[in-house]
Amino acid sequence: MFDPVEALKEFIRHPSVSADPAFKAGMQGSREFIAGLLGGMGFAVEVVPTPLHPVILAERTGPDAWPHVIIYGHYDVQPADPLNLWTSPAFEPEIRGERIYGRAAADNKGPLLTHVAAVARLLERRPDLPLRITFMIEGEEEMGSPSFPAFLDAQAARLRKADFVLLSDTGSPREDQIVITCGLRGLVLCDVEVTGARTDLHSGLHGGVLKNPIQALAELCASLHDAEGRVNVPGFYDDVMDVESWEREQLARFGQSEAQYREFLDIPAFYTPKGFTPFEATRFMPTLEFNGIGGGYQGQGTKTVIPSKAFVKISCRLVANQQPEKIRELLYAAIASRMPKDVTYRIVDQHSGTPYVVVPPDRANTPADQSPVLARAFRAADSAITSVFGRQPLYLREGGSVPIIADIKRVLGLDSVMMGLFLPEDNLHAPDESFHLGVMRNGIAASERILEAVAAGGR
Amino acid sequence: MFDPVEALKEFIRHPSVSADPAFKAGMQGSREFIAGLLGGMGFAVEVVPTPLHPVILAERTGPDAWPHVIIYGHYDVQPADPLNLWTSPAFEPEIRGERIYGRAAADNKGPLLTHVAAVARLLERRPDLPLRITFMIEGEEEMGSPSFPAFLDAQAARLRKADFVLLSDTGSPREDQIVITCGLRGLVLCDVEVTGARTDLHSGLHGGVLKNPIQALAELCASLHDAEGRVNVPGFYDDVMDVESWEREQLARFGQSEAQYREFLDIPAFYTPKGFTPFEATRFMPTLEFNGIGGGYQGQGTKTVIPSKAFVKISCRLVANQQPEKIRELLYAAIASRMPKDVTYRIVDQHSGTPYVVVPPDRANTPADQSPVLARAFRAADSAITSVFGRQPLYLREGGSVPIIADIKRVLGLDSVMMGLFLPEDNLHAPDESFHLGVMRNGIAASERILEAVAAGGR
Repeated sequence: MFDPVEALKEFIRHPSVSADPAFKAGMQGSREFIAGLLGGMGFAVEVVPTPLHPVILAERTGPDAWPHVIIYGHYDVQPADPLNLWTSPAFEPEIRGERIYGRAAADNKGPLLTHVAAVARLLERRPDLPLRITFMIEGEEEMGSPSFPAFLDAQAARLRKADFVLLSDTGSPREDQIVITCGLRGLVLCDVEVTGARTDLHSGLHGGVLKNPIQALAELCASLHDAEGRVNVPGFYDDVMDVESWEREQLARFGQSEAQYREFLDIPAFYTPKGFTPFEATRFMPTLEFNGIGGGYQGQGTKTVIPSKAFVKISCRLVANQQPEKIRELLYAAIASRMPKDVTYRIVDQHSGTPYVVVPPDRANTPADQSPVLARAFRAADSAITSVFGRQPLYLREGGSVPIIADIKRVLGLDSVMMGLFLPEDNLHAPDESFHLGVMRNGIAASERILEAVAAGGR
Repeated sequence: MFDPVEALKEFIRHPSVSADPAFKAGMQGSREFIAGLLGGMGFAVEVVPTPLHPVILAERTGPDAWPHVIIYGHYDVQPADPLNLWTSPAFEPEIRGERIYGRAAADNKGPLLTHVAAVARLLERRPDLPLRITFMIEGEEEMGSPSFPAFLDAQAARLRKADFVLLSDTGSPREDQIVITCGLRGLVLCDVEVTGARTDLHSGLHGGVLKNPIQALAELCASLHDAEGRVNVPGFYDDVMDVESWEREQLARFGQSEAQYREFLDIPAFYTPKGFTPFEATRFMPTLEFNGIGGGYQGQGTKTVIPSKAFVKISCRLVANQQPEKIRELLYAAIASRMPKDVTYRIVDQHSGTPYVVVPPDRANTPADQSPVLARAFRAADSAITSVFGRQPLYLREGGSVPIIADIKRVLGLDSVMMGLFLPEDNLHAPDESFHLGVMRNGIAASERILEAVAAGGR
């Protein structure tokens, strides 16, 4: 069996930045590395082309009576710049203390190899394990997985017969407190561009006769929240799923105080919807945020123009049960009704993502028709994590969005068991990204137990 | 006597971009050219150093009994980029039709040479003309004249004994309708920077717990005008000078229709303070404009951050009788009282400029103590322009700001006769800047008559 840490080092050395064509060799190297590893373990490896970066499908087949797990991961990575802020080079992995440093150590090469190593160890020990396993490893996650939905459609016939998906591409608060993520927020994004005069104008010669597009945009933006911080778009909250009492209980065990969180953010005060703590607000409530705004002169000093154009980038995070299409419609209607009439505007659609929720077994709101294999996987994860990490996992919805999880649910009908393996200190998407080697070690052990227990139960 | 058009060509060929140190040679060339011309006309030329670009002072002295006019101009020019949008190169003057094309043709080399040529012609014809003339030609106008107030202070003793200032650095609507500018708006500029969390945040992980700085800024900006388009800063309008009936009458003769103006701007509707036409609003009312706004992600596509910072650049145009210091105080107090408390902010002062007004003789509001030489200059300008251009000039306040005119009033106690020589088609500060040769020809004749009439009256 291979050494997981050495394997991770080699994996990191292939710089696989999917967004930058200059990293074509690193993308190919990463694919070949992971394909070689899985091939060596006896998997039938396919490199499935897409319009951009191929997906790796690696199968261990078996009789229909065996449970079938899909293990998801991605071999592409975020850009490494600013390079000068790295202590050791981004693509030359280095171990310092309990951590391995390098781009993608935590997102997602380390967690992906955790499951690969668990499978390798398990199959070495039990070559006849009655479990079908499909690794599904994409190369566009850091770009928003543009090819993935079409890939799922094309492969749906073979993949939708699986029982559930296992992955580690979410986080946990501490090395001894693992979170199993049970929900992800969805997304609706758009740009709003406001136009005043046909060109930038001299603010002396023409100031006082027309509505400044920045002012029009400010009036619009100011109108999109009410005085209590709620999103002021009629109908916005209509479909929001109720928060279950078990969810609040789980969250209460999360262990971070509001004071600590406020200090971490370094803000004068929280600004949350009434009746929700900050920790609840990010997980259970939808938002409308401004991600960027621009218009006119932004350089040093002054330039006295009335800009012709100004724009804002808006993103809504949606929670379970909200539909992106409906929210988009409500938002656009609010914009249309409030935009000052003395300017023109257009809305540019950006992407959407459906929110996702999966309820673990034995909860008040667990669906009656939950798959027994999925239920067994959750129970196995609970017991494996409890004994390996020394603490029962928490079951939490998360504020972030992984739209492919909802896509998998929609296209394949499969739910996901998301075991969070990265920590707040791991610096995802930032310089000095790292992965905790103790978490990796325990993660391998936990994953091995989960898969063995799933296999043991049959279908 | 030199050929004014050939002189203008040579003047333009010295690329004197004051803001860019790469144009040092062009600045020096421009200075030497104009100093040489004036020296050749018998003026005593001084190149007065400043911390940045020297001012040229060229004097024709005489007995105290002779009237004394200061002719102002500037030898520096705006940058010429984008260079690829020029039909002929910016610094290689070319005559096409009735116009001469090149950077600074209209701003300010052409109009400045108009007065130089008028003086040359007049003195050639009347070498014994009883008129003291001082050319005061600065090199930092396009940078906001940073050294000019200190220069005025240093030279005040000799300059304040003059009678008035004559200049052409303002505009007129048509080649046959000259405007004598009787007022300029002042300026108060500042940046407002709003800070939320200490760093940009992931809008999924943290969205819903803090006030987005873009939202805080939008709320502030939206609050700074009321529903009727008036500036919503308490006390803002307190000191605004009443509009005199003669001013409205003059403006009514301006000759542009609202429909033409709206078409020129290409806006759905005007947005003016109640009771003011667009033409009145830009001249008689103060404004608060947003010149630029920025924050967060402004690139293509999406980046789901909650930005740490956002900023807006604000400029107020002030009208006669308003004090920049007081308006600054009122504005900052309004910002302080309205800024949402969940963010921090700071205001960065930018520059100020005092508004200016001069009332021609024989008006209801002409000051009783108006200098007889100034009054004569106005009357001479009226008759010279009427006969040379074929139409009586209009006397109008203008929306733009030329802060040095108020500085000259404050430091030297002198008023200015501003004969507008550039036209809307001249493309000031833009590619294909040009100057109308017929306007130059008539301008020379008018300036010559004005100066001769001023001399004729003694002091």
